[in-house]
Amino acid sequence: MAVVPTLLVLDADPLPRLGRLTGRVRVLHADGTTLAARLPEADALLVWDAASDAVRAAWPGEGPRPGWVHTASAGAERVLCPELAASDTVVTTARGLFEEPVAEYVAALVLAMAKDLPGTWEAQRRGEWRPRETPRVAGGRAVVVGSGPVGRAVARSLKALGLTTALVGRVARTGIHGPDDLDRLLARADWVIAAAPLTERTAGMFDVRRFGVMQPSARFVNVGRGGLVVEDALVRAVRSRWIAGAAVDVAATEPLPPDSPLWRVPGLLVSPHMGGTAVGRHDELGAQFVDLFERWAAGRPLKNVVDKALGYVPGR
Amino acid sequence: MAVVPTLLVLDADPLPRLGRLTGRVRVLHADGTTLAARLPEADALLVWDAASDAVRAAWPGEGPRPGWVHTASAGAERVLCPELAASDTVVTTARGLFEEPVAEYVAALVLAMAKDLPGTWEAQRRGEWRPRETPRVAGGRAVVVGSGPVGRAVARSLKALGLTTALVGRVARTGIHGPDDLDRLLARADWVIAAAPLTERTAGMFDVRRFGVMQPSARFVNVGRGGLVVEDALVRAVRSRWIAGAAVDVAATEPLPPDSPLWRVPGLLVSPHMGGTAVGRHDELGAQFVDLFERWAAGRPLKNVVDKALGYVPGR
Repeated sequence: MAVVPTLLVLDADPLPRLGRLTGRVRVLHADGTTLAARLPEADALLVWDAASDAVRAAWPGEGPRPGWVHTASAGAERVLCPELAASDTVVTTARGLFEEPVAEYVAALVLAMAKDLPGTWEAQRRGEWRPRETPRVAGGRAVVVGSGPVGRAVARSLKALGLTTALVGRVARTGIHGPDDLDRLLARADWVIAAAPLTERTAGMFDVRRFGVMQPSARFVNVGRGGLVVEDALVRAVRSRWIAGAAVDVAATEPLPPDSPLWRVPGLLVSPHMGGTAVGRHDELGAQFVDLFERWAAGRPLKNVVDKALGYVPGR
Repeated sequence: MAVVPTLLVLDADPLPRLGRLTGRVRVLHADGTTLAARLPEADALLVWDAASDAVRAAWPGEGPRPGWVHTASAGAERVLCPELAASDTVVTTARGLFEEPVAEYVAALVLAMAKDLPGTWEAQRRGEWRPRETPRVAGGRAVVVGSGPVGRAVARSLKALGLTTALVGRVARTGIHGPDDLDRLLARADWVIAAAPLTERTAGMFDVRRFGVMQPSARFVNVGRGGLVVEDALVRAVRSRWIAGAAVDVAATEPLPPDSPLWRVPGLLVSPHMGGTAVGRHDELGAQFVDLFERWAAGRPLKNVVDKALGYVPGR
């Protein structure tokens, strides 16, 4: 590493505030088209445009590669191509900044669906006063798939609403169910929340069979990654009333294409991957990166390091 | 009172299930037009149609009056005419059945407004993927006006969401602010929740001046009674962006008339007085009345007795 390290930033608006790193680092900027050419110059890569797939495309190839890649995202699936996974490069994520906002967002979606707020606002548009009886949320059963920090924050938030909540993770451990329990839990759940990382194991796990196992009164929420869900199966499950409704904040392709059938299924709510966002978020992401950069530049161990075999940051 | 007491029911659909009272009571039915004629025959009156003003209209007049009036509502304001207030007749309410559903409903409205779910579903209608940063709910400040069971349940629910919550009641006491603190609290609140009973003191308390005191970022929720609010002032406050938004689940006139301006203010959400409803509600209201009836028939003290000078059930 050079005396003044070179930081390559895959840009997005607004740009990161590098604060106290200013002057202590040589900053190069890249977009999707220039990333491959600039990678060999970089000691570190900040994937500020966390919605971009440019790293997966640019990483394979000739020349030196940065020793550290940080993605300003909760998940590493967009940067982790096989060549990066097999390399010595350390990958870190923005873990820690998304958990609580996502948990609030799930609470918002669950309550809004339970109280049929979409139906109420649709009625308001027509000037129609039409009271209905709606189910209580408290006393219901939720299954949260994904036992990482996001899943656990979601479970805490749902417990605070009075729901009985079961967490399902990759392996069973104290307080967390393993995959073998999943179908049995799904069959009894009022609410199914997908909050897992996207990995080879989890891709497409919510398929026709799994939606078929759920109760007709169940509702499904995806705040993990779009790829967890076979989207055609979800469309069919909601249209056919296999389940009572769904809300997806993530999609396999984002932005969701205008011709996606997800947009137009009654009872299926689409939101634009904003569960983890919050006012001030960009400043928090920037400050988190600056802290990590100082550790890295000082040769101290990084935090939020991805286990590249698992595909996410393991541990508590 | 006759050996078999006569119970007069002001009807609404579905009719109350009187369960174990069947055969032990003579039941008369009335609607708004027949109530006045049948009142003199009644030992007790069940105001099952809690949205009706028929009691206020029918009570004044000649002849005997029932010794007990029960309204299947959290509030007594629709039955308490001056003549009933001045009489020896005991008035009871359905207190105890509305608190938790209303608290969930307020949580639903607060989270939906914070996360701009109405804006998201509006965008979905247009097939538009438009992420925004939204404020966190946790860490904000809420003021709940009304320190009865509904207000206290709402405050508990908002605290569980991480809000700092102040309760304002008719008189200051431990943990509850008095009216003198209200304006100071309103000026700092992110969320103002109206959950007070409608009485002479509270009628019209949310007026132009009070909306003017609130922050431009504040949002207002009314789950109390429509009459707490000067509706023209609320319309003006939201239209003029004195406050950031509002949700009203109650209106001065219900159903809200088609020509009410409340229906059509951007940022003002109208729902049809369903915060206290829940699946199974009618059975719960019927069972609660049956329990009270057995106390009354046995000459034991009633519960949920309205202080007719205050206008609501006082105390814890």
